[in-house]
Amino acid sequence: MDDPLDRLEAAVRGRRGADPTTSYTASLFARGRSRIAQKLGEEAVECVIAAMGPDPAEIVPEAADLLYHLLVLLADADLTLADVRAELARREGVSGLEEKAGRPAAM
Amino acid sequence: MDDPLDRLEAAVRGRRGADPTTSYTASLFARGRSRIAQKLGEEAVECVIAAMGPDPAEIVPEAADLLYHLLVLLADADLTLADVRAELARREGVSGLEEKAGRPAAM
Amino acid sequence: MDDPLDRLEAAVRGRRGADPTTSYTASLFARGRSRIAQKLGEEAVECVIAAMGPDPAEIVPEAADLLYHLLVLLADADLTLADVRAELARREGVSGLEEKAGRPAAM
Amino acid sequence: MDDPLDRLEAAVRGRRGADPTTSYTASLFARGRSRIAQKLGEEAVECVIAAMGPDPAEIVPEAADLLYHLLVLLADADLTLADVRAELARREGVSGLEEKAGRPAAM
Repeated sequence: MDDPLDRLEAAVRGRRGADPTTSYTASLFARGRSRIAQKLGEEAVECVIAAMGPDPAEIVPEAADLLYHLLVLLADADLTLADVRAELARREGVSGLEEKAGRPAAM
Repeated sequence: MDDPLDRLEAAVRGRRGADPTTSYTASLFARGRSRIAQKLGEEAVECVIAAMGPDPAEIVPEAADLLYHLLVLLADADLTLADVRAELARREGVSGLEEKAGRPAAM
Repeated sequence: MDDPLDRLEAAVRGRRGADPTTSYTASLFARGRSRIAQKLGEEAVECVIAAMGPDPAEIVPEAADLLYHLLVLLADADLTLADVRAELARREGVSGLEEKAGRPAAM
Repeated sequence: MDDPLDRLEAAVRGRRGADPTTSYTASLFARGRSRIAQKLGEEAVECVIAAMGPDPAEIVPEAADLLYHLLVLLADADLTLADVRAELARREGVSGLEEKAGRPAAM
């Protein structure tokens, strides 16, 4: 498992049902979907702030936080990063300007 | 390049400087950092809404939209998904509950 | 009714149940809670972007948009600005630094 | 000053420049624009979560938090709630469906 995203997903999924006092991830699962969704939203706000700030390098840790909380959300909903990758693969070759009327397309 | 995330990043980066009328991605780059950050924030809101809604499967396309806009933001700031993966790798082994006082940790 | 906020609330509430093709407000009510919440979140993102941008005066129209969508949400949930004012009045005199452990306080 | 919103705004503005250890509001001003914008965004996320949750009454305290942080942002940018009320008054009579192509209108 060479991709840190995959390793992180495996680690996150391993914390489901764990004692909430043992890790931040386990405590998030214990608090439930609303709290996980809230944290995802908050991390996106921090990403936006970093994007607008003077030091673009600040985007990297915020993006990492955002991806981490997205992985927690996916796991909480019994979904996987593979599901998201499959959705991105499905969109390949779909013209963004055509698809745009509906959902912002992959391109 | 087996990972759809990597293929998407390569495609996104290839649109930098392209004629904004030719693709949604090129039009985002043309509108600049504020607009890209705004779209990232909006997609996160849609992800939160899907997370709170009755059909968790709705999270997948919203997560794909969120990742796409994150890749656009990274490219706009001359950053890469590799930078974010490196940050996640750096955090491996750091106890989440210890790191939590500062930034929400990888675990 | 001297306060434009109160006039706006009255106008918004008057659109509930109206033909969605006749006004933006009526179309929001027709689309329902998820869509209204999504728009509130998006307007907040625009407010954040304006707050971080070079021209603070841009905050004013975004704040107006945010308040408008908040009034739509309140009306959709059978709540009123009076309910929110009562909550703010209730918090008067509560020390912010004491209350902070729970919810960010009024002061 | 009968409106709790106006009383809150006066109290918030009175904390500008105050010792940040004496109140939450003063500490927000001390941390600056980015932090204030971040908190506004976070409170909007909590409002969205409450809007999507099972108990609509939860929207009220979140709306109060959102308005409080909006007042802090306005004060930090040397703007006032009167500026926002004037913007709302300006929009009265403008057809929402006509104005919609630009900014989501007051109606």
